[in-house]
Amino acid sequence: MSDCVFCKIVAGQLGAARVWESESVLAFLDINPVAEGHTLVIPRSHAADITGMTSREVCEVAQALAKIAPAVVKAVGAQGFNLLNNCGSVAGQAVEHVHFHIIPRKAGDGRGYRWITLNYGEGVAAELAAKISGLLE
Amino acid sequence: MSDCVFCKIVAGQLGAARVWESESVLAFLDINPVAEGHTLVIPRSHAADITGMTSREVCEVAQALAKIAPAVVKAVGAQGFNLLNNCGSVAGQAVEHVHFHIIPRKAGDGRGYRWITLNYGEGVAAELAAKISGLLE
Repeated sequence: MSDCVFCKIVAGQLGAARVWESESVLAFLDINPVAEGHTLVIPRSHAADITGMTSREVCEVAQALAKIAPAVVKAVGAQGFNLLNNCGSVAGQAVEHVHFHIIPRKAGDGRGYRWITLNYGEGVAAELAAKISGLLE
Repeated sequence: MSDCVFCKIVAGQLGAARVWESESVLAFLDINPVAEGHTLVIPRSHAADITGMTSREVCEVAQALAKIAPAVVKAVGAQGFNLLNNCGSVAGQAVEHVHFHIIPRKAGDGRGYRWITLNYGEGVAAELAAKISGLLE
């Protein structure tokens, strides 16, 4: 898409610190890293989110994540990482070209997040699982 | 692994609200959900993290995530979702059987997290990208 920042990076119209690329996938450093080495992995073809990607692209991007994340960890001397995809503005998606974050993590880096956990009432989880399952048939 | 909670769920020795399954992948509701419908997607075969998964498993789990997430969103009336994988205890991994979170998100759900962003100094990003890239050759 002509007004998409990530499409411009794919096309070489905008610069980026490229980390890895294949025919269908591109990885580059996030310009606003939440940790040193924070990398974005995207399909070259424009899709707003994962639901717009082909099955093959989903596979290739995931395999790229598995390949690149350990290299990021090693390069910055981290001990682990978070893989994150935000789908939709309510989920924190800021650029409407699907992207997967690799965020290297170090002990005591203060980058942790806290989610509040809930509890399902009696029978609620089973009912909800059946509802989701029904939508997948 | 005999002492792995998720392997016990796979084997049916522990109950779970199952959402979807295939020959190699299982999806079930997180027992401590951070949002209603919070789903975990795992490979049936034990691996501590994504680096221990086969290329095929990575592909199949990712395709399952892309398939299941929209159904979760629809089932709970959400507008988006986060996909998250925590690799290593420093990254918040609590169960040592690789798992991917689908967290449905709704406007104003208060489930957002805040990361602090950094800035790379002049030339630092290019140097780091080259370092990571070198580890991938």
